[in-house]
Amino acid sequence: MWQVHCFPLCPFSRKVRLAMAEKGVAFELRRANPWEGSDAFFALNPAGRTPVVRDEGKGITLIDSQAICEYFEETEDKAPLILGTAAGRAEIRRLVALFDEQFFGEVTLPLLNERMKKRLVLRSSPDSKTLREAMRLAHEHLDYIDWLIDNRRWIAGAQLSLADFAAAAQISVADYLGGIDWSGHGEARGWYRVMKSRPSFRPLLTEKMEGLPPPPGYNDPNS
Amino acid sequence: MWQVHCFPLCPFSRKVRLAMAEKGVAFELRRANPWEGSDAFFALNPAGRTPVVRDEGKGITLIDSQAICEYFEETEDKAPLILGTAAGRAEIRRLVALFDEQFFGEVTLPLLNERMKKRLVLRSSPDSKTLREAMRLAHEHLDYIDWLIDNRRWIAGAQLSLADFAAAAQISVADYLGGIDWSGHGEARGWYRVMKSRPSFRPLLTEKMEGLPPPPGYNDPNS
Repeated sequence: MWQVHCFPLCPFSRKVRLAMAEKGVAFELRRANPWEGSDAFFALNPAGRTPVVRDEGKGITLIDSQAICEYFEETEDKAPLILGTAAGRAEIRRLVALFDEQFFGEVTLPLLNERMKKRLVLRSSPDSKTLREAMRLAHEHLDYIDWLIDNRRWIAGAQLSLADFAAAAQISVADYLGGIDWSGHGEARGWYRVMKSRPSFRPLLTEKMEGLPPPPGYNDPNS
Repeated sequence: MWQVHCFPLCPFSRKVRLAMAEKGVAFELRRANPWEGSDAFFALNPAGRTPVVRDEGKGITLIDSQAICEYFEETEDKAPLILGTAAGRAEIRRLVALFDEQFFGEVTLPLLNERMKKRLVLRSSPDSKTLREAMRLAHEHLDYIDWLIDNRRWIAGAQLSLADFAAAAQISVADYLGGIDWSGHGEARGWYRVMKSRPSFRPLLTEKMEGLPPPPGYNDPNS
């Protein structure tokens, strides 16, 4: 069976888990805390990052969340997530990269550093200026999602795609860390409620990071 | 015809230009300096990054270097660069991401900030500590390339792939900025000489960033 090496608040592991669950690929979770920098984890992935997806029986180790999603896209017929014309597929990949790189770099990563790493690992106080800036940028990204959902049914076009799962994965981690304020973002909020109510999403939302409880409403598809 | 919007030292534009040239896709260059943050460029790409690849006649705009490479991989039969089995293709994409994200973040980006942006845009002096750290990390990446080339014919396996062009694109920018010291990296150096001598690579190596000449040997395939 496939094993997904990850920790509960890794947004890239969430993207991969969502894609695998949508496609009906069975997997079990293996806990990995990349910030501990263990030799065993570096032996698994020299880049020192989660997720790593592995099937020991098949002797396959997959690394990098987008390479992993492309792998299951190529090997599983069920639930295509990078679909449509070549230009449509390019639009899906553009938006996946936008959330994986820019939303992550501007919102999720500073929230993980200030609210998870400083609390659980460094035992220091979060920097309020960094948090304010991350939340300001979160609003800009939510504005962009409002605009997309105003013009399309889903994030990348007429059909549900990997772009929706990439966006929802980042938002779910930012939301867990108290970084999402939905006021003024009706379209984005409506879209995210639909994502939260998918069966593939439920296991993520009930999972908790030790010592760091989520805010009220995080797990509620109607919130 | 396709237009590639980029600046001479953008490593992601170099990756895209190399892939397009290998596949025989004709294109012309359009200069874009993303650090100027012009409204026209943000209208083209809301993420504000190069490269943007566009065909006005076809009405297609492609954004994000990996989405662009996947697009031409899907639409051009010539010179497949993401090739082999699904697991082999995952290995190519893992290594593309390693160079696009980690080599870029640890080596190319600090070199671009200290040696290009501070000189041409900010008119300030480079920080020697940041430069030393970038060059130390460049050695670690070159060690990894040495190891790969010791075990395989090309970066990702038995065949030339997009991973070779992603790696060579980052290295060529770092080399232009004086960040590459080949001593002790015989395997990596031999591989990079072969890359430099490819016809697709020659136009990149003769191009110059205004006010920032490359070091001796940068353009020489035997150096």
